[in-house]
Amino acid sequence: MWQATEDVLESIAIGAGILGTGGGGNPYIGQLRARQAIKKWGPVTVLTPEELPDDARVVCVGGIGAPTVGIEKVRDLQSYHALRAIEDYTGERATALISNEIGGSNSVEPLIPAARAGLPVVDADGMGRAFPEFQMKTFFVYGVPCCPMAVADEKGNSAIVRETINPAWAERLARALTIQMGCVACYAVAPMTSEQVRRTAVPNTLSLARDLGDAVKQARDDGDDPLAAILSVCPGKVLFTGKVVDVDRRTTAGFARGTLTIDGLESCSGSRMVIEFQNENLIARRDGEIVCTVPDLICAVATDLGEPVTTELMRYGLRVTILGFPAPELWISPEGLAVAGPQAFGYETDYVRLSV
Amino acid sequence: MWQATEDVLESIAIGAGILGTGGGGNPYIGQLRARQAIKKWGPVTVLTPEELPDDARVVCVGGIGAPTVGIEKVRDLQSYHALRAIEDYTGERATALISNEIGGSNSVEPLIPAARAGLPVVDADGMGRAFPEFQMKTFFVYGVPCCPMAVADEKGNSAIVRETINPAWAERLARALTIQMGCVACYAVAPMTSEQVRRTAVPNTLSLARDLGDAVKQARDDGDDPLAAILSVCPGKVLFTGKVVDVDRRTTAGFARGTLTIDGLESCSGSRMVIEFQNENLIARRDGEIVCTVPDLICAVATDLGEPVTTELMRYGLRVTILGFPAPELWISPEGLAVAGPQAFGYETDYVRLSV
Repeated sequence: MWQATEDVLESIAIGAGILGTGGGGNPYIGQLRARQAIKKWGPVTVLTPEELPDDARVVCVGGIGAPTVGIEKVRDLQSYHALRAIEDYTGERATALISNEIGGSNSVEPLIPAARAGLPVVDADGMGRAFPEFQMKTFFVYGVPCCPMAVADEKGNSAIVRETINPAWAERLARALTIQMGCVACYAVAPMTSEQVRRTAVPNTLSLARDLGDAVKQARDDGDDPLAAILSVCPGKVLFTGKVVDVDRRTTAGFARGTLTIDGLESCSGSRMVIEFQNENLIARRDGEIVCTVPDLICAVATDLGEPVTTELMRYGLRVTILGFPAPELWISPEGLAVAGPQAFGYETDYVRLSV
Repeated sequence: MWQATEDVLESIAIGAGILGTGGGGNPYIGQLRARQAIKKWGPVTVLTPEELPDDARVVCVGGIGAPTVGIEKVRDLQSYHALRAIEDYTGERATALISNEIGGSNSVEPLIPAARAGLPVVDADGMGRAFPEFQMKTFFVYGVPCCPMAVADEKGNSAIVRETINPAWAERLARALTIQMGCVACYAVAPMTSEQVRRTAVPNTLSLARDLGDAVKQARDDGDDPLAAILSVCPGKVLFTGKVVDVDRRTTAGFARGTLTIDGLESCSGSRMVIEFQNENLIARRDGEIVCTVPDLICAVATDLGEPVTTELMRYGLRVTILGFPAPELWISPEGLAVAGPQAFGYETDYVRLSV
């Protein structure tokens, strides 16, 4: 058990930016929003899945939409409205909240309604990274129903996706509502049990994000290499280093989609990396050859300071290093890969786990 | 009180086709679906608003989407699923159903869930015609809340539009869900009271549709003029007669939108009428001059047989007569015109009531 105070938010934002693989919503904006909520309503208790009471009712909350829009659009208490809407629909009160994805601003999204409602959050999430689509959560892969779920905007509109024939249809209907709501909204899923959280969530990811951020900050303070600090906390490898020479990004169908091209520097000089993204980085090719795919993590950080660079802020001229991390174990089962492997995103390649 | 049996469906389809002003869903398809339901589960009792028990809970059900799609897409028991979804959400059981609009297939849509559930329907509706958008109902103009409402498809997906800041947002979210569901879905609105029905519905419209159809059939049998028969039942006037020379129709944003051009014949020879539609006919211009606008009814019927011609079946070469009817009184108040007058559809013209 620990307290999410204003002091830890900067570290979480750095770590969640790295784990977000480009997406999950802008972590700086998320940090500001969480800071405001904690300043107003006080710190939030963070419980491990084991520390949850056995009879807990755990609601997963998150933002949905295009990160490009999320950096501009007011969100206010969207996720609190979504929480109240799903409580109202199910007739059950949440006793704890959990992040849908540890990547980007969604890592701290639950802190806002948790601070407002005086609830704890769970040190875990439904991805162990970020993914672009609602149904891509370990919860749903391992049998938690994806519906009913509530979608709410900041204006006072809310809807319930009540029942769908499969999780992809929940994504489809929620995305259509989100687009109407201005391309960014928040959602809340019907409560899970503690048993479901312990069995299906990726554990200890909020503290992992915090520890990653702490390590980066410490390395900067000490004049050490922040990239080495990241890899010491989270086992992974450097995939590429270079300069961004092209970003082809469009906000379409409720996502930020596109391609990032990096020309190699230093040890990668003469090579080129091309990364395709849908909010998150999906596949990295070096000189045409696939070197990493979903569900493994493809993370861009500024080469000098280890600062994560998300999809919506990527731009020409940035010096970035691309890090790769193997996906959480829950994703590499056949059921997990069916939902978030390369083929789930339309790539014909098979998943080959990144060796580190 | 009367019984909606298989025998009355053909007349209702003709009358509802006329009152549909081009839209409301294909009346022939609606008739076939209602016939199947009544054959399977028996006739449906039709009550006037006054005959409703004072404690009745009346659910408005209807189809939503593009009529062009509605003639092809399977609907099955969509409206029954929507009914059950809103009952489940509100915790209240419907004791009667009411049509959202008397035009087109929506006139008989409530008969299907009513037959299935053994409920009566009310001889009234929320438009006294057809309109393209969800919020364009007399119910909502006069204070009935438009939410919560349920949207369901034939596959097993359903959603609740729970709360919106105004009725236009309910249309916006329901339309987005409908498009995902395949451009045709069904909805059900939270129950109304008998007092609300009596005060805000356009009364006696199901019997009006039946009487219109009966008159057309009788005239055909007797070798009389079916157009004169229509005007004897429903006061209105002939606006134009001619041959369809162009139909510019596209299915877009969940509607069938376009323009219909008719070259005059007989007394209209040398003139041209152009009608713009959004599912329904919105504005009729003769040689550039506006002769009729919403909320008044602009209805196209085949000149020879008085058969209504809906938007999705309109085609080059048809001989049609355009009839105009003044809108129900509930629409011509300032509140009514704000929702369904010409300016609500983006036309700058003021409403001038059709004189008959």
